[in-house]
Amino acid sequence: MPDKKKISRRKFVTASASAAALSCLTLPRLAGAAAGDAGGERANARPSSSASVASDWKEQGIENLSKSPYAKLRNIPVHAVTIQSGFWAARREINVTKSIPSMHDLLETNGRMNNFRRLTGKSNEPQRGPVYSDSDVYKWTEAVGFALQSGDRPEIRAMAERAIAEVVAAQQSDGYLNTYYVGEKASQRMQPQVQTTGHELYCMGHFLQGAIAYYRATGDSKMLDAGIRFVDDFLVPGYGPAPKKPVVSGHPEIEMGLIELYRITGDKRQLDLAGYILQGDSRIALPEYRTIYMFSGTPFTARTKLEGHAVRAMYACCGSTDYYLETGDAAYWKTLNTLWDDMTKTKMYVTGGVGSRSDGEAFGDAYELPNYLAYGESCAAIGNFMWNWRMLAVTGDAKFTDVMERALYNGINSGMSLDGTLYCYRNPLAFDPAPGEKIRNTWYDTTCCPPNLERTFAALPGYFYSTSKDGIYLHFYDNSELNWHLEDGTGLRVTQKTKYPWDGSVEIAVTPSQAAEFTFFLRIPGWAEHARVSVNGEALSGVKQGEYLPIRRRWSPGDVIHANFEMSSQVIEANPHVIDDMGRVAVQRGPLVYCLEGIDQPAGTVLTDVALDLTDSSGERFQDEFRSELLGGTVVLRQAGVVYERERSDDSLYSRYSAAPLRSRRIPLTFIPYYAWSNRQASSMEVWTPLLRS
Amino acid sequence: MPDKKKISRRKFVTASASAAALSCLTLPRLAGAAAGDAGGERANARPSSSASVASDWKEQGIENLSKSPYAKLRNIPVHAVTIQSGFWAARREINVTKSIPSMHDLLETNGRMNNFRRLTGKSNEPQRGPVYSDSDVYKWTEAVGFALQSGDRPEIRAMAERAIAEVVAAQQSDGYLNTYYVGEKASQRMQPQVQTTGHELYCMGHFLQGAIAYYRATGDSKMLDAGIRFVDDFLVPGYGPAPKKPVVSGHPEIEMGLIELYRITGDKRQLDLAGYILQGDSRIALPEYRTIYMFSGTPFTARTKLEGHAVRAMYACCGSTDYYLETGDAAYWKTLNTLWDDMTKTKMYVTGGVGSRSDGEAFGDAYELPNYLAYGESCAAIGNFMWNWRMLAVTGDAKFTDVMERALYNGINSGMSLDGTLYCYRNPLAFDPAPGEKIRNTWYDTTCCPPNLERTFAALPGYFYSTSKDGIYLHFYDNSELNWHLEDGTGLRVTQKTKYPWDGSVEIAVTPSQAAEFTFFLRIPGWAEHARVSVNGEALSGVKQGEYLPIRRRWSPGDVIHANFEMSSQVIEANPHVIDDMGRVAVQRGPLVYCLEGIDQPAGTVLTDVALDLTDSSGERFQDEFRSELLGGTVVLRQAGVVYERERSDDSLYSRYSAAPLRSRRIPLTFIPYYAWSNRQASSMEVWTPLLRS
Repeated sequence: MPDKKKISRRKFVTASASAAALSCLTLPRLAGAAAGDAGGERANARPSSSASVASDWKEQGIENLSKSPYAKLRNIPVHAVTIQSGFWAARREINVTKSIPSMHDLLETNGRMNNFRRLTGKSNEPQRGPVYSDSDVYKWTEAVGFALQSGDRPEIRAMAERAIAEVVAAQQSDGYLNTYYVGEKASQRMQPQVQTTGHELYCMGHFLQGAIAYYRATGDSKMLDAGIRFVDDFLVPGYGPAPKKPVVSGHPEIEMGLIELYRITGDKRQLDLAGYILQGDSRIALPEYRTIYMFSGTPFTARTKLEGHAVRAMYACCGSTDYYLETGDAAYWKTLNTLWDDMTKTKMYVTGGVGSRSDGEAFGDAYELPNYLAYGESCAAIGNFMWNWRMLAVTGDAKFTDVMERALYNGINSGMSLDGTLYCYRNPLAFDPAPGEKIRNTWYDTTCCPPNLERTFAALPGYFYSTSKDGIYLHFYDNSELNWHLEDGTGLRVTQKTKYPWDGSVEIAVTPSQAAEFTFFLRIPGWAEHARVSVNGEALSGVKQGEYLPIRRRWSPGDVIHANFEMSSQVIEANPHVIDDMGRVAVQRGPLVYCLEGIDQPAGTVLTDVALDLTDSSGERFQDEFRSELLGGTVVLRQAGVVYERERSDDSLYSRYSAAPLRSRRIPLTFIPYYAWSNRQASSMEVWTPLLRS
Repeated sequence: MPDKKKISRRKFVTASASAAALSCLTLPRLAGAAAGDAGGERANARPSSSASVASDWKEQGIENLSKSPYAKLRNIPVHAVTIQSGFWAARREINVTKSIPSMHDLLETNGRMNNFRRLTGKSNEPQRGPVYSDSDVYKWTEAVGFALQSGDRPEIRAMAERAIAEVVAAQQSDGYLNTYYVGEKASQRMQPQVQTTGHELYCMGHFLQGAIAYYRATGDSKMLDAGIRFVDDFLVPGYGPAPKKPVVSGHPEIEMGLIELYRITGDKRQLDLAGYILQGDSRIALPEYRTIYMFSGTPFTARTKLEGHAVRAMYACCGSTDYYLETGDAAYWKTLNTLWDDMTKTKMYVTGGVGSRSDGEAFGDAYELPNYLAYGESCAAIGNFMWNWRMLAVTGDAKFTDVMERALYNGINSGMSLDGTLYCYRNPLAFDPAPGEKIRNTWYDTTCCPPNLERTFAALPGYFYSTSKDGIYLHFYDNSELNWHLEDGTGLRVTQKTKYPWDGSVEIAVTPSQAAEFTFFLRIPGWAEHARVSVNGEALSGVKQGEYLPIRRRWSPGDVIHANFEMSSQVIEANPHVIDDMGRVAVQRGPLVYCLEGIDQPAGTVLTDVALDLTDSSGERFQDEFRSELLGGTVVLRQAGVVYERERSDDSLYSRYSAAPLRSRRIPLTFIPYYAWSNRQASSMEVWTPLLRS
């Protein structure tokens, strides 16, 4: 059990000897905070008895829900889970050794760090990059922070330390920090028009998330203190209800940052400001198209559907769920569920990607889910993942985890190349290389997605388990070891041994520090049609796909759960309203959505001439084979298909069709997981394959 | 033969008695122009011997190519052709009696006319509508102008006279005219940034086109003179090569306007300015994405593909072809053909629509032709039509007329409802009413398309024929009578009797004023696979689809051409690169592309579950039937199909597909012409229908 030190808001307090004595901490502002808050705002502060910092930073999960009144589930710290050799370990190691360092170098060579140095006289370079470029540095810092929460990595820690020093040095004496609205643009700071487009608060939201992740990794609060200065010295005193100046969230993100900060400081003004922003400031008049696009500026609780910029919408939903977790405001909960139904019933790709329109990087209409023209920004899939994580914390309902798994293994995992150096901004569900689009790139001038992917993979262990007052929830499967404790303090070790997602068998050793009665909530994935679960060899009843199986018993060291999720290939059809998927099916095996890449098919096969043949009911469908040498090791699926031979050979756009029966040939089709597409030479790809009908 | 009066540039000249004596003209500025130009710019003016105005206005076609050195074909005036009862007559009558008057009222009620009155103190209303709203008034005026060229219509003439008076009264003393950049915005006029987005020159281009059409209808040059004041007093002296101020065409349109004005005035400075604009002004630095979007700002002759905003691109191509028609600059011709090939081989819908992306209302990549998400703005199809008209004038090549016919009968004709009061902005090739999109509307705040459609239908007779030094070209088929003359002055009457496009038989009586040898170039449509042509009952050889059949002979009164274009239904397939059309076919009969509307199919048929069955080779395919009561009278097509019965009935987005053979039922499918879709209750629609494959 961690050593708890009481602390409260940083203002109006004197240094606490006990906090200052903590050897590994350098908390000039946080360490300067202690219990004796005598200020007039104390009534607004979270009761100091439940607020703790000091060594507590090591206990905080991706979100610190330890005191959130409406959280059914509590996060565990990232370091409490060690992901061992298996599906995610390779991705995560490359993330730390390749992706994060190479992104550091790219942020340098593209002038993003010089933007800060310019403000401290260390660089003469002009400002570079779009208005939101600071956020990319902060998101990268967050990736490092989460990576370090799994154990020290001196190389990237040194990079982050240097970056943080450069960033913090650029902060102004009034707390303001942004490298774009400086010099002759300084007069535009936080002007209403700039708030809608200038991303100052978006950047600060990412600053806070980065600072908090780094603080939770190292205890180093240098960046966090700078964030607190921005919030407490500049933002909170200046912006909010009259007589303060108006405030609007041009790109939601600050809401999450403020609420997570509140979870550390207990300063309710931070939570209240997030709530104020979520309801919109009527003093800033905005055209309707703009509040739709921003998914902000009008009361969140008045929204009835997902629309506008997908990442903005997802981040607004994240912030609103955070707000609900702290306040229990029923109007938020109603809206969040309405929006979730709208998304999952009409606007989400089978990959978990969202935001189908490139126009405005936006949600389309219901069922508007084009494949070739899919946008599906990596950041939006991550936003979807993060939102469902918060919804899960409220409810413990596995339907949210199902969406998370779908997004994580498919629409998010596709966003980073297997070698960790190339990124997708958009994630189409079909692709033709002919027009020349390069789908994976090392760098985007708007480089939001790469560090977003990096922070997500780095944080992954923190998503594997949650605790509740009743016991422990297991959300995701991979070889791993949890070392943590139940909420009553009982130590608990859980080890998973599995080949998931290639195989659906998982052996879970449950080892409490002493025999104890609690519930082990075992997630039965929504796709697992024939799941079987046993404890110590004894089969359990009541196993239902898409639910947490509550295993209530007195657990003792040596107890073992065996879970088996039949991992046969499933053929998926879309709702008839999804025009682009009509006559087509997708193939899913376990959590993985599959696709056809042209390169894997018999030579000369034109993917658009192919249909999947499921008419032969003899024999096994979708023969699977694990190929260790392919794409980092992957199960491929094989199934019969036909390819139609075209008559025409000219290059005309339209021509007379003879209506003579097309000759077709039977060919074997080979499917690979969608996340692994576009990791070899440029090739055509499709997730939804036409189905041969007779 | 018209009475020709010499006239040259309006400046530095005194009134010509002969011009002033013309009874029906009120040409304060043009009538003030006469032969004696003593100014220093005379060297730049077109030789006055070839310039003629006065009664000449009655001889000018849609474009006045009478003196264009690189025009192989010359336009005939709109009034020279009377379209008689048949396919287009109904549309054109409704255009004049319903569409144009109702658009007048809508421009009033939406404050577009008050924008002008405000400047003359007659209105206190604030400016309404987007920055380009003036252009809609001008385009409507052009529609009236073209309508009046077919004969007087007092009601709409009175509307236009009043509107023109209001508009012209708002012109400033320096010639500038725009209702947006006034008052506190006046200082922004023609600033480089405003030129790229503010549409001042776009509006003036439409002003000139409207003024010219009205002038050619009535001889009333009040509006034209105001346009000349803008050009000669404000634009030409102020903008162009240094030391003049820089100029850029934020939305191409002014180029067409300036060149058509040059064709009236002979003032070469107008042509030169158009050419300068088409090459881009390097003093206005623009990011690449902007010059792509605008299809302007960089040398037109350096372009290699169609991209960016489709209407801008089409209008730029129109202006560039106009420039070529006057200058013969080979670099333009090369670029125009490159772009034409790019469009017709990779970027044009089967309906003749272009601009597939809603994002930026833009051309997509090659073969990016989605159906449900098709943009296909009505204005872009019209721009395509107008561009091909100009390419045709250069060459006399029927491949351009084929594109015009495709666009006219389908992607343009679909843009206006059959009752003439509702308009499509976008023209998708598939539609699902479920998300609630209303595809036809009376009014758009950006109401560019409705008056554009109105001017096109009003101008239609002017597109039916052209003359060349060798004789006459017949481009389009409908009951009609031409009363005009060959270029050598020989009078010529041509009457067409036909049920085109419902039937492919056309009887063409050719009646010269006296027997004369010339060539009658008869268009054989590209779709006409088995065309037969006879003269006075004698079959001609050498009939080739997609070419003009040159019938050279001594024509005498009483000669009759019989053309027969076999109008069987054709099944069309798309290039394999067009992903969205794979496994699908379109049906075309004559020039008309057909579609399925849900409302015409057996009750309960879900259109997306339907496939077309062409496997039965016995019996006639696509039985046609003319139904006089349906959609204003139309040929419907019937062909067998199947409908698949879905197993699922829930509203989930994705579900497990059983892979059991789907039950299917045979159903009769009924196709209607695409242009007539969405004229009844909201219904699903598709042009490209899945083909049953066995």
